[in-house]
Amino acid sequence: MLPEEHSDRLRVVLVATRNPLNIGAAARAMSNFGFRRLRVVQPWEASFREAKSAVGASELLREAELFDSLDDAIADCSLVVGTAGLGPRQVEVPVRRLDDGAGLIREHVQHTPAAILFGSEKRGLSNDDIDRCHWLMHIPTRPAHESMNLGQAVAVTLYELAREATAPPVVPERKPASGEELERLTAMLLDLLATSGYTKPHTEEATAEKTRRMMRRLNPISKDAETLTGMLAKIRYKAERD
Amino acid sequence: MLPEEHSDRLRVVLVATRNPLNIGAAARAMSNFGFRRLRVVQPWEASFREAKSAVGASELLREAELFDSLDDAIADCSLVVGTAGLGPRQVEVPVRRLDDGAGLIREHVQHTPAAILFGSEKRGLSNDDIDRCHWLMHIPTRPAHESMNLGQAVAVTLYELAREATAPPVVPERKPASGEELERLTAMLLDLLATSGYTKPHTEEATAEKTRRMMRRLNPISKDAETLTGMLAKIRYKAERD
Repeated sequence: MLPEEHSDRLRVVLVATRNPLNIGAAARAMSNFGFRRLRVVQPWEASFREAKSAVGASELLREAELFDSLDDAIADCSLVVGTAGLGPRQVEVPVRRLDDGAGLIREHVQHTPAAILFGSEKRGLSNDDIDRCHWLMHIPTRPAHESMNLGQAVAVTLYELAREATAPPVVPERKPASGEELERLTAMLLDLLATSGYTKPHTEEATAEKTRRMMRRLNPISKDAETLTGMLAKIRYKAERD
Repeated sequence: MLPEEHSDRLRVVLVATRNPLNIGAAARAMSNFGFRRLRVVQPWEASFREAKSAVGASELLREAELFDSLDDAIADCSLVVGTAGLGPRQVEVPVRRLDDGAGLIREHVQHTPAAILFGSEKRGLSNDDIDRCHWLMHIPTRPAHESMNLGQAVAVTLYELAREATAPPVVPERKPASGEELERLTAMLLDLLATSGYTKPHTEEATAEKTRRMMRRLNPISKDAETLTGMLAKIRYKAERD
């Protein structure tokens, strides 16, 4: 188990889950491995809080936070990790194997909140969800049968996270930008790109996607995100006055 | 994944399972992690072979072997490992943590068959079952909530068994920006800051220094430095024409 102050910094985020039993199963696995912060984004059934599968974890499930958008669910998280198969989809986000990624997440939650996202049973995370991820994590399954049951994937992931009993040495770290700070910076840049004519109407969506991914790769610390937002705001202010 | 000749020496044995959906879930996890030999001892429902939860593993489930007694199910196995919580029950069989035990099982199946037993959902393995085990294996869960869902316990166990032998992580390699590319990007930004009035004459040097340091912290990959330079160039071009 991780120390409670660390495990409480991890948010398990279930996005567009269809079967409420899987939400309950995720809650049970969280409780088994000592995690408590469950966030649910646009579930298919509002009644998930009564899922019988949350054996021993009904309180955790009752306290789950419900969100209308993924952006709101990750607003306070400075690391967002998506779970995904290696599948046919080519993504530009780096993919780490679960055991490698788990180490990075354990380090991160020593200081600041992080989110792990699990997509819907049928389709996993959408490209739009993945654009919000700093990187993806992959459970090494058999290529011919990659797709895991959602509750089982959550259990395996949290087992790996909690497995290393001893916490690594605490290295003071710079505070990375939160999801909200990143989104503010991205929005400011996109706005400038639109007014400058960099973005054409038919490329608007692709540019937004590209820019969001790039921001996750750049992964600025909080202070730099703020500086950059300020710089761009000034540039835009000048452009508007001219 | 283990080599097939090794993984085929492992029998996953479900004893007195109540819910056929859990048998299906176990089959799915086996298929995910490359194991094929499922044995079912006295299940509560004979119809388990149709369990819908065996997504992608229906053939494995159809080929599962059904036994009337545990003794028959483990007759060809020279190592029998039970899974159990640490619970209140005092057992005289040695208990190993999953990650320690998994190594021993991997070694064993290089040469001879082994069985891992999972008990019923409510009660786990009986004392009578445990008497047939060489040792027990324990998934390190939170003592206040030890009891895992059966399908999740199977998934975590098989993940740990298959984990070591998997291919190295897949992180697409990233070429970091060269000094020249960074300098081009920095110069473009500084130029925009000057024309927008962000930089005052007496702060020019300090801003340049601050911006250079920030660029090193951001440490963009080559492709992103190029994209950003292009974006800023377009913004500057527009600002000049206005």
